[in-house]
Amino acid sequence: MLKEECGIFGVFGHKDAAKLTYLGLYALQHRGQESAGIITFDHTRFRTIKEMGLVFEIFNPKNLSGLTGDMAVGHVRYSTTGSSNIKNTQPFLAETSKGTLAIAHNGNLVNAKELHGQLKSSGSIFQTALDSEIIIHLLSKSREKNLSDAFIEALKQVKGAYSLLLLDKNSLIAARDPYGFRPLCLGKLDSGWVVSSETCAFDLVGASYIRDIEPGEILLISKDGLKSIKPFPFDSHAFCIFEFIYFARPDSQISGQSVHCIRKKLGKRLAKEAPVQADLVMAVPDSGNSAALGYAQESGIPFEFGMTRNHYIGRTFIEPSQQVRDLEVKIKLNPIKEILKGKRIIVVDDSIVRGTTSRRRVSALKEAGATQVHLRISSPPIKYSCYFGIDTPQRRKLIASNKEVEEIKEFIGADSLGYLSMEGLLESAALPPQTFCTACFSGDYPIKIKDKINKFSLEEKT
Amino acid sequence: MLKEECGIFGVFGHKDAAKLTYLGLYALQHRGQESAGIITFDHTRFRTIKEMGLVFEIFNPKNLSGLTGDMAVGHVRYSTTGSSNIKNTQPFLAETSKGTLAIAHNGNLVNAKELHGQLKSSGSIFQTALDSEIIIHLLSKSREKNLSDAFIEALKQVKGAYSLLLLDKNSLIAARDPYGFRPLCLGKLDSGWVVSSETCAFDLVGASYIRDIEPGEILLISKDGLKSIKPFPFDSHAFCIFEFIYFARPDSQISGQSVHCIRKKLGKRLAKEAPVQADLVMAVPDSGNSAALGYAQESGIPFEFGMTRNHYIGRTFIEPSQQVRDLEVKIKLNPIKEILKGKRIIVVDDSIVRGTTSRRRVSALKEAGATQVHLRISSPPIKYSCYFGIDTPQRRKLIASNKEVEEIKEFIGADSLGYLSMEGLLESAALPPQTFCTACFSGDYPIKIKDKINKFSLEEKT
Amino acid sequence: MLKEECGIFGVFGHKDAAKLTYLGLYALQHRGQESAGIITFDHTRFRTIKEMGLVFEIFNPKNLSGLTGDMAVGHVRYSTTGSSNIKNTQPFLAETSKGTLAIAHNGNLVNAKELHGQLKSSGSIFQTALDSEIIIHLLSKSREKNLSDAFIEALKQVKGAYSLLLLDKNSLIAARDPYGFRPLCLGKLDSGWVVSSETCAFDLVGASYIRDIEPGEILLISKDGLKSIKPFPFDSHAFCIFEFIYFARPDSQISGQSVHCIRKKLGKRLAKEAPVQADLVMAVPDSGNSAALGYAQESGIPFEFGMTRNHYIGRTFIEPSQQVRDLEVKIKLNPIKEILKGKRIIVVDDSIVRGTTSRRRVSALKEAGATQVHLRISSPPIKYSCYFGIDTPQRRKLIASNKEVEEIKEFIGADSLGYLSMEGLLESAALPPQTFCTACFSGDYPIKIKDKINKFSLEEKT
Amino acid sequence: MLKEECGIFGVFGHKDAAKLTYLGLYALQHRGQESAGIITFDHTRFRTIKEMGLVFEIFNPKNLSGLTGDMAVGHVRYSTTGSSNIKNTQPFLAETSKGTLAIAHNGNLVNAKELHGQLKSSGSIFQTALDSEIIIHLLSKSREKNLSDAFIEALKQVKGAYSLLLLDKNSLIAARDPYGFRPLCLGKLDSGWVVSSETCAFDLVGASYIRDIEPGEILLISKDGLKSIKPFPFDSHAFCIFEFIYFARPDSQISGQSVHCIRKKLGKRLAKEAPVQADLVMAVPDSGNSAALGYAQESGIPFEFGMTRNHYIGRTFIEPSQQVRDLEVKIKLNPIKEILKGKRIIVVDDSIVRGTTSRRRVSALKEAGATQVHLRISSPPIKYSCYFGIDTPQRRKLIASNKEVEEIKEFIGADSLGYLSMEGLLESAALPPQTFCTACFSGDYPIKIKDKINKFSLEEKT
Repeated sequence: MLKEECGIFGVFGHKDAAKLTYLGLYALQHRGQESAGIITFDHTRFRTIKEMGLVFEIFNPKNLSGLTGDMAVGHVRYSTTGSSNIKNTQPFLAETSKGTLAIAHNGNLVNAKELHGQLKSSGSIFQTALDSEIIIHLLSKSREKNLSDAFIEALKQVKGAYSLLLLDKNSLIAARDPYGFRPLCLGKLDSGWVVSSETCAFDLVGASYIRDIEPGEILLISKDGLKSIKPFPFDSHAFCIFEFIYFARPDSQISGQSVHCIRKKLGKRLAKEAPVQADLVMAVPDSGNSAALGYAQESGIPFEFGMTRNHYIGRTFIEPSQQVRDLEVKIKLNPIKEILKGKRIIVVDDSIVRGTTSRRRVSALKEAGATQVHLRISSPPIKYSCYFGIDTPQRRKLIASNKEVEEIKEFIGADSLGYLSMEGLLESAALPPQTFCTACFSGDYPIKIKDKINKFSLEEKT
Repeated sequence: MLKEECGIFGVFGHKDAAKLTYLGLYALQHRGQESAGIITFDHTRFRTIKEMGLVFEIFNPKNLSGLTGDMAVGHVRYSTTGSSNIKNTQPFLAETSKGTLAIAHNGNLVNAKELHGQLKSSGSIFQTALDSEIIIHLLSKSREKNLSDAFIEALKQVKGAYSLLLLDKNSLIAARDPYGFRPLCLGKLDSGWVVSSETCAFDLVGASYIRDIEPGEILLISKDGLKSIKPFPFDSHAFCIFEFIYFARPDSQISGQSVHCIRKKLGKRLAKEAPVQADLVMAVPDSGNSAALGYAQESGIPFEFGMTRNHYIGRTFIEPSQQVRDLEVKIKLNPIKEILKGKRIIVVDDSIVRGTTSRRRVSALKEAGATQVHLRISSPPIKYSCYFGIDTPQRRKLIASNKEVEEIKEFIGADSLGYLSMEGLLESAALPPQTFCTACFSGDYPIKIKDKINKFSLEEKT
Repeated sequence: MLKEECGIFGVFGHKDAAKLTYLGLYALQHRGQESAGIITFDHTRFRTIKEMGLVFEIFNPKNLSGLTGDMAVGHVRYSTTGSSNIKNTQPFLAETSKGTLAIAHNGNLVNAKELHGQLKSSGSIFQTALDSEIIIHLLSKSREKNLSDAFIEALKQVKGAYSLLLLDKNSLIAARDPYGFRPLCLGKLDSGWVVSSETCAFDLVGASYIRDIEPGEILLISKDGLKSIKPFPFDSHAFCIFEFIYFARPDSQISGQSVHCIRKKLGKRLAKEAPVQADLVMAVPDSGNSAALGYAQESGIPFEFGMTRNHYIGRTFIEPSQQVRDLEVKIKLNPIKEILKGKRIIVVDDSIVRGTTSRRRVSALKEAGATQVHLRISSPPIKYSCYFGIDTPQRRKLIASNKEVEEIKEFIGADSLGYLSMEGLLESAALPPQTFCTACFSGDYPIKIKDKINKFSLEEKT
Repeated sequence: MLKEECGIFGVFGHKDAAKLTYLGLYALQHRGQESAGIITFDHTRFRTIKEMGLVFEIFNPKNLSGLTGDMAVGHVRYSTTGSSNIKNTQPFLAETSKGTLAIAHNGNLVNAKELHGQLKSSGSIFQTALDSEIIIHLLSKSREKNLSDAFIEALKQVKGAYSLLLLDKNSLIAARDPYGFRPLCLGKLDSGWVVSSETCAFDLVGASYIRDIEPGEILLISKDGLKSIKPFPFDSHAFCIFEFIYFARPDSQISGQSVHCIRKKLGKRLAKEAPVQADLVMAVPDSGNSAALGYAQESGIPFEFGMTRNHYIGRTFIEPSQQVRDLEVKIKLNPIKEILKGKRIIVVDDSIVRGTTSRRRVSALKEAGATQVHLRISSPPIKYSCYFGIDTPQRRKLIASNKEVEEIKEFIGADSLGYLSMEGLLESAALPPQTFCTACFSGDYPIKIKDKINKFSLEEKT
């Protein structure tokens, strides 16, 4: 399963800033389960709590009450083992030539290595492996006196994916890269403003969704109200289509569209593109739910719950020993035998990465009695690594980069395997096709990737 | 939502006893999230780990490796705040006149207070508020020399609900009260035996489901094999029908029947009994999923996912402050507006206890745009407290004990409210009607409840 | 070094009962560092906090404020690894035929095994390896209706060392065995009463020291005042002389005498009995401080600080690896070279148990430059195990049980070794000789030890 | 009591680098109890463990084994509440233009604010309130290519007190400011080198003490051996005389002299300067021990132990409530009444800061029965704040800055009060008088303090 790397949430001008951010992060927890943090400003001091763990493990009424102030930024983070480290938690706080700044970043810079080298040569020092630190260095070095001008100057030097929140003593600034890789939305609550990676966080805090921050937009929120700046020449947009397919929560809206409804459309289209005779349609819960329902409705084959999800496994299920292996797949989802026995089943999932988990699922379903297992994927084959904020494995580990669909089917042990076509995907996704980044399927990277560096190379050097 | 009080799991004759029990408890975690424990016997010593918390929080490969032995009993527990205490965790271990014994109990004794008083008068001392301690006292005081005879003598003195596992140095004994209130099943793994509250635990450990322990059966498992004793005169059976309706995991089988399939039947019957014109059928996830699907299939009204469940809330969601209230309902489930807007919806849930949560859900769905909300409950109104192992509130707090259906509808704010009838329930449940305990609906308690004592009175006295 | 097994503290009739007990345990921490606990009664409920760890790690203003009530008992415990277990922490709380009781015990019963067997045969069950549990069983089984009568009946059945505090809803009862093995003192604070193992705890809480609880005395403290009962026929007294030599804090008073002053007397006598020409006298800090000062004053040889004590080592110093070994001695005490270089030194310590630590100390002092190291011990050779509350190793591990003084000197590497004589000890100790237990030196056990059972055999059976 | 701010320890060329550093920090724990950290380099990666807490709480064999490498720097830290923060723990690690560097600092820069402002203006960003970060910025910005040249260039810009350890991939560099405010010593172990704030750490790890790092010396330790650089013009030396009086451990040697012996000399001189008739001399344990012994020897008045120290209080004693106050003094030290009763006593302490603790001690001694309490201080009155690495309160809170000796005596309630004279101090201290910093007594700061900024102003700005 692919993993999203971050969720961000900010508040300006609301007395409950920390509490709202806490709730916002709760709602964005699916975007990162490794660490979380909140920084507030109370017009005297910046207050910080950042820890490894889930939002509910880190925050409580007592420590939240110490996060005084009416301005806040928060962050939830996922990352690979290598950088699993308290020093790489966000938001990032630093004193700079433009005052004390807190920054929260969702995305990935593709020229980080280059900038890092240049900055270091010029005498800058680095304490983390975060892109945020690079941006703050650039900002602090800017000759521009004004914070927003300096921020713009800094952003003009970075390339890649970023949805950013920047907090100083006077303002909250939200920024989205010119391609708009990652989402970022504006909401209103009472007389204050909130900014979030996804709208589902607005629902929880009771804010109303105003609009998306636009690709290339820098939005200043201060006591003088909103000010929108678009300092970049228009290139093309490249919104990560995987937000629709898998990452975003089904109850979020992107560009005004419900994620669940789009996923149902993907499922309906998939039913047309890859039909098969079967007794029932089921999802890999919960990521495949929406598409499976769409497939069932379109095909007329009954929808069923064929597996039960265990809600009580921790972030990582720890297998008790080597002798009792391969439990991770089983402990998460258990097939319901009476439903599956003797049936031809269609199983809908959002994607296949390495193929090993799918193989175990298919095998479990057959053991449970299914006579045929037809696997349907609500997106095209993933053949290329992502450099814009998603944790994909190296290309050679992506099964579709090495194998044809027929070979993948064989590997997985399914009776048939159907992927959604690129056309099917783009026609269902409800934004113009050219506005998406589809590089993981096509290899057409919106920004040229020079040396296919690993995202975590900065840290590995340390 | 009603809460189950316990799940139990035992192993005899398997070198991975602790690890299997750990996995078994993982699968039974839905039956109790407050504390968990495992006791093993390695033919030299009994080894214990018991703590407050979830299974994944308590156990890890390192501490499991200290639980040596090929015999084990495990327990997961839910309980009300009052008794939320490390000393009341199970399994319970004591040295007795019959040797060292470990016991794990799911259920509730209705003559606990009486026995407790008698034992104390005779000089026994009590260190916990557990029914298990009472049973062990009775067993230890028995003049019978043989452990199983003494156990039977003890069980003849207790009244109420019990599914029990008793471990001594030579055997694992499984017992179920003559009414069979709570489930208990026997499975086989390699050359060893496993016993579990539900079959879903067998699926995870890879055991095969042999049969249920029968009401009134005492099953001795030793190196001489199985020995079944039925020491009680036959009365009537009284299996808790709420196991079918809500408690058991959908992928478990009870008396050979799939819980998911029975719940679908309940939903289908409900569709016949309480039909209504609407645009879609949705569940309160995940407890209403199966019944909602059944309702949709029977009624022909499309099934939909109308709410998204947040998987990352801890055992208890802690509201950050009084100003930001009533979040518990919202944080668990968020309506999907685009699906609900302008629609007449049927929402299927398993039960209504106090009515307050349902009221908030209905209100959230209407805020999200639903024009009509028709609430359908896949069981009859709960009017009476349970004394047999389920944590129901006091009778006066059960909304259906005070209000007619129409009044409940008003309170909840639904456009219509339909419960499944008792006949509908019993006819769908696939065991003969007389084999069930339906006291929570009917007030016909299988065992006379003398003074409607509170289950936790023992502890409150301390 | 020998280790004391427990300290106890109780409060009756003071609104700050828990806080006073917390402070009392702080002052008694030297008597047990493994676990601590406090139980209070607030005229509605008994409240308990018991944990592994030091007093300052376990208690804080928040959890203390939950220990409401004006009556309390507290306990600090040392124990060997085998029984290092949360279930064996004290005070021990149980519901009994005489009501709910909390008990705290310092000492060791020598007929525990026998009583345990008898009680178990009669049907009693055991959940701990504590002597306290045995006493509570006996008390609960008593036909006497009155608590104090039942307590007396129970105490008449036990043999061995006990200083006990028993708390019920109406009274605090302090009891000391007829031999008076372990200390127990009565103090007064405002209008309430306090009972403590040592008077140093009274100093801290601001209480005045009234008198010792006498051997064989049972003192009832209730709202009717004090009532002293002496139900046992007079035998002989046997106060542990090691309380004077090592266990008690120097600032405590025993039978009205300052422990520090008695230790100085031991040192003075030692100087007379075992004189030697040398340049300086130093202590093994801090246990040898008082005796070393006495030795110096008597001999006229200057007192010096020859080693520095590290105050920041935890309960157990964990050696970082096998390669870097034998650090435990070094990390606690570091010789001061400039003081020792070229000097003939007299080192005063309270006792030698196995001899290995003394050997390392002598070697460290010689490495630091001392030309001669004369070891002087302010007590006779320890040749016998203790069965009355002190954690001595098995007899064969006591170096003086196998070796003559000359051989011990050789083993340790000292230039000379002098022990205090038994007469010297008894004449300095300021109570009549016949009132002491000196079994560890003489083997004359005040109570016959049947089978030299190990103190922890109860648990080992489990 | 004054508090030292840091201890540092480094290892070059020893396979047990982390373990030795752990032991070194153990021995230096008295120099800082708030946090500790170790960074190693294993020729591939730098490895870090830094946490709040004591050395024994933070490190264990398991996490030490992850600190691979034969080079290490370690740090223990004390600091005021304001900066009590995980981000301000040391050693400090950063990637720089000169490679990755770890630095550990003991001391305080007096131009930190100025440098901080300049660096920030030039675009540098700050993530901590540490002087170390400033030094690393200066080093990274240097045009010098060579690490040691860049380090020298950086050090030429800073003013104040610093004993530093700098670790890069090839070398360990030790540096001491030209005044030599804080100590730093070189030792040898097997074929490797160790550097420590005090020699007591060498004793524990088994290293031999070679010499002190000299004021103004920069010592490069690499596989090419030692290289000493003295880049600064000679000014004057200013070794903190309080290291002798209080900070250093008695078993440490400074400039080849035993700290304990110097303190004894201070006590002897004090006896001459401030004699008084009395019955006994006692110390405030343990800081006054050495001087008290010297006083007793010189005066011929017997030395006594008049108070017992409680070894089991945590870093901070938490008073259980407001009602039970002023316990901190009492819980640490308890007077021994029998010794004090009716006696005229001389109490020797190292210094008086605010006077409140001394007042409580005197009062406790009188309550315990002393008829006269003569307080003797083994240093002159502290009248001025320290800006060179010691945590003194603001000047106005120093009792001797506002009050004459006679007034202090009154405030404290002593029968007489005598301080050591400056001449007495300097003549006893065994280094030439002009080599010391005595600013806390005289106000003659070796480096001009511009605006008496608070040491922690950097952080307070954040």
